Amino acid sequence: MMSKVISWKNGVLRLIDQTKLPHKLHYVHCKSADNVAECIKSMKVRGAPAIGVAAGFGMALTAFYSKAFSTKELFVELEKTSKKLIGTRPTASNLFWAVDRIMKYAKVNANSVKEMREGVIKEALEIEKENEMVCKMIGENGVKLIKDGCRILTHCNAGRLATGGSYGTALAPIYVAKRQGKSLFVFVDETRPRCQGAKLTAWELQQENIPYAIIADNAAGYYMQKGEIDMVIVGADRILSNGLVANKIGTYEKAVLAKENGIPFYVAAPTSTFDSKSKEIPIEERGEDEVLYMQGLSNSGKIEKVRIAPKVSKAKNPAFDITPARYITRIITERGIVKPKVREIKRLFKNKILD
Amino acid sequence: MMSKVISWKNGVLRLIDQTKLPHKLHYVHCKSADNVAECIKSMKVRGAPAIGVAAGFGMALTAFYSKAFSTKELFVELEKTSKKLIGTRPTASNLFWAVDRIMKYAKVNANSVKEMREGVIKEALEIEKENEMVCKMIGENGVKLIKDGCRILTHCNAGRLATGGSYGTALAPIYVAKRQGKSLFVFVDETRPRCQGAKLTAWELQQENIPYAIIADNAAGYYMQKGEIDMVIVGADRILSNGLVANKIGTYEKAVLAKENGIPFYVAAPTSTFDSKSKEIPIEERGEDEVLYMQGLSNSGKIEKVRIAPKVSKAKNPAFDITPARYITRIITERGIVKPKVREIKRLFKNKILD
Repeated sequence: MMSKVISWKNGVLRLIDQTKLPHKLHYVHCKSADNVAECIKSMKVRGAPAIGVAAGFGMALTAFYSKAFSTKELFVELEKTSKKLIGTRPTASNLFWAVDRIMKYAKVNANSVKEMREGVIKEALEIEKENEMVCKMIGENGVKLIKDGCRILTHCNAGRLATGGSYGTALAPIYVAKRQGKSLFVFVDETRPRCQGAKLTAWELQQENIPYAIIADNAAGYYMQKGEIDMVIVGADRILSNGLVANKIGTYEKAVLAKENGIPFYVAAPTSTFDSKSKEIPIEERGEDEVLYMQGLSNSGKIEKVRIAPKVSKAKNPAFDITPARYITRIITERGIVKPKVREIKRLFKNKILD
Repeated sequence: MMSKVISWKNGVLRLIDQTKLPHKLHYVHCKSADNVAECIKSMKVRGAPAIGVAAGFGMALTAFYSKAFSTKELFVELEKTSKKLIGTRPTASNLFWAVDRIMKYAKVNANSVKEMREGVIKEALEIEKENEMVCKMIGENGVKLIKDGCRILTHCNAGRLATGGSYGTALAPIYVAKRQGKSLFVFVDETRPRCQGAKLTAWELQQENIPYAIIADNAAGYYMQKGEIDMVIVGADRILSNGLVANKIGTYEKAVLAKENGIPFYVAAPTSTFDSKSKEIPIEERGEDEVLYMQGLSNSGKIEKVRIAPKVSKAKNPAFDITPARYITRIITERGIVKPKVREIKRLFKNKILD
């Protein structure tokens, strides 16, 4: 069992530095919201639910170290922190959700600085605890879709690392299926440009002794066409109420290919990933070096970057894409499995357990 | 203008080592068919038409250095060479086509060792010359499909490097359009695992000052969905008489996505790429290290490999895929542009110029 991806202890937030995996298991210790913001921005912590949890603790760090004399003063500090955290990455909705939730909590716990401070920290811990529970339930709901001998394609990393817990979202049903003794094979899209599949998902699956193979993103269609993939499960960075799903670049491609080949395509995400307000999802454009270079372990055992492309070449690097609801078979949440339809998604938020 | 990719002079075949591009322009000098076979196998020379040309010269090298006393003896040597060359890579049909053509030529020029030897060398040079002409005609035929301002997606490298000439196949219409003064933008799929797009196509386009951007293979669908791609042009490694196209892994994915988004999908290939006999196309499985590692230029200026994935991880690495005719809008050949239909493909081989 691997060490905790995200852990809080007495004003220190410890994170596994995911940019160094799978080559080095290195931890970062954050003592301020600035540290946390930097970790989110540089993707030391990544994956929508994990970003949410980390952002919650970012707020907690401001509360923990605050020297404010009044609740008003502390509230201003928290507001400033919330803006900084929200400004780190634009697509994942769990980030906004977690920060919002804590701001609301601070507002209603304003009898004293102590109450507000402790309340904020407690709420951040609560988000973490809930997140773990929610992922477990996604696993238990999703496992019903996985038959013995199932060959599953997954894209990017929507596992433990992406959620900070011990289940993940897309990988949760796979972990539960494995524990139930089901035989499985996972096709892992390497997921260029950052290769979260080859680096993180492979690393996780290896630790659980789940048989897998890394494939170039180009090869997913080939195996679908050959009838060697029974289902696709991916995570999500944001889901709108009409079922539009923003997720790692390439998700849309795999969804279209799955539909074309009659393969069910599942999105696994906590309800905190849903965004009922927006009509559009902003897509983050990241630096072109992620495409032009590749990071890995060199012969000498160092983590190094090599340049793939010619010296002065240009690249475009959208980090996410949007998959329309018509390509999605079902969305697996902690509250049940739903079709990506307005009415079904609405029902999720009436706290009803669906199946 | 770049140096010749493949050139023959007095029993020496000079090839640009494509595994070192775009970082180093390094030449290999082959003096035996064994050298050529090694270059094809290790992908120092790659791209279906270029493999054909190189294989032709591989036969020529055997003829050139042969010490045979009789035509029978020389013919046996050529047969041995042909088997060696054919065994290098299983998918590209130009390889078989070129070797076959030379063997047939040898058979009918059997009056003397000198005649057979000179005939074989002449035929290899003829294949090279024809190949250049054929690519030029593909460019001239294909350019009619390219409007001013066109935004084109291409996959892998089907350019000069892939053909050994100065046009390429998929890139030929682009080069001709550029010379006609048409404004263009090329989206270059990086084409994992070997990144022929990021390494070779980008290198070629840069030399012609054609604006382009390298994208992760995962992002092609995103730009199609956004309406930013007007057409797709790719090359081919083998085309069956029913229009099935084998090409670099990922081609099938892009073809499905193009169809889904109403974008025309063109395959550009010489008629030597057509295989009228086979009903199936064998797909080469290459080593998993191509997926698990990435080669590039290190900080210290050396070409190095870095490991992407965890130490003991597994990968699968099919080098090609098969795109059914229903996803292909037209096939651009030197003899005209045809629909991927049995009847139209048959007409190509009646030596009729189609439009």
